[in-house]
Amino acid sequence: MPDGTNKALAQAAQLLQQQIRLDHLGVAVKSIAAARGFYELLGLHVQQEETVEHEQVRTAMLPLGESRIELLEPTAEDSTIGRFLARRGEGLHHIAVHVQDIGAAFARLKAAHVRLVSGQIRIGACGHRYFFVHPASTGGVLLEVCADALAEGGQTE
Amino acid sequence: MPDGTNKALAQAAQLLQQQIRLDHLGVAVKSIAAARGFYELLGLHVQQEETVEHEQVRTAMLPLGESRIELLEPTAEDSTIGRFLARRGEGLHHIAVHVQDIGAAFARLKAAHVRLVSGQIRIGACGHRYFFVHPASTGGVLLEVCADALAEGGQTE
Repeated sequence: MPDGTNKALAQAAQLLQQQIRLDHLGVAVKSIAAARGFYELLGLHVQQEETVEHEQVRTAMLPLGESRIELLEPTAEDSTIGRFLARRGEGLHHIAVHVQDIGAAFARLKAAHVRLVSGQIRIGACGHRYFFVHPASTGGVLLEVCADALAEGGQTE
Repeated sequence: MPDGTNKALAQAAQLLQQQIRLDHLGVAVKSIAAARGFYELLGLHVQQEETVEHEQVRTAMLPLGESRIELLEPTAEDSTIGRFLARRGEGLHHIAVHVQDIGAAFARLKAAHVRLVSGQIRIGACGHRYFFVHPASTGGVLLEVCADALAEGGQTE
């Protein structure tokens, strides 16, 4: 490729990258009370703790730079995190990557036959949008792609 | 506690937090060539690829906001990453948290009897300093604490 094309590609890659960051790391734990102590010693603090009833999970968010650690404690054994703990033990459950244009990301990955867990973009707490990519396509990591809520009155992609 | 103390603690926590960020996520993969495609579709690009001979691993770094994804491919079956793949399959191998004062972090965690994998702070590629915390103390995640290299002529803690 001519130098100009390479330069344009490098600039495009840089631009894309500025629009992308790690949103959080979800860590499945038996007990938030037991796990948080280490992260507090490291200099983090719990910003928000809440129970998400329909997912049967209690979460604690600890900001870490522009990202966050999200501790996930099941409130029932027969829940997503409860079953994960029974099968794999404590550890990383998923990573979440924040993008600007989630519609474009979803379309691009689907067109490339990346294995998606979610058949469409979903709406989560406070209206934020997300979908999950299967570990088979990411090097063994369950990966959430997420974006901010749409402005009021907006349409989902 | 009086309000003033709470406020001072909150400010101290905020200050500590500004000095801390996710440095990278280390993902063990069978093949960088096979795994990188997904991350490139997501908008990341490989900034640096290198072989670390004494660790028998090939690495590819993909910047992600202020952090990075580090793909780790073993160059020998009987290596740390090779054995991890045989035992667990592809997936997250470790997370690395960057701190300003690694000496203070090491001392604080040791005093609290956090289980450390490294008996002392080590010097890595380009002089950066690091130590590892055992998954038993972190909620199941192998966690590296790292810091920049000391200025020339400096002393390690």
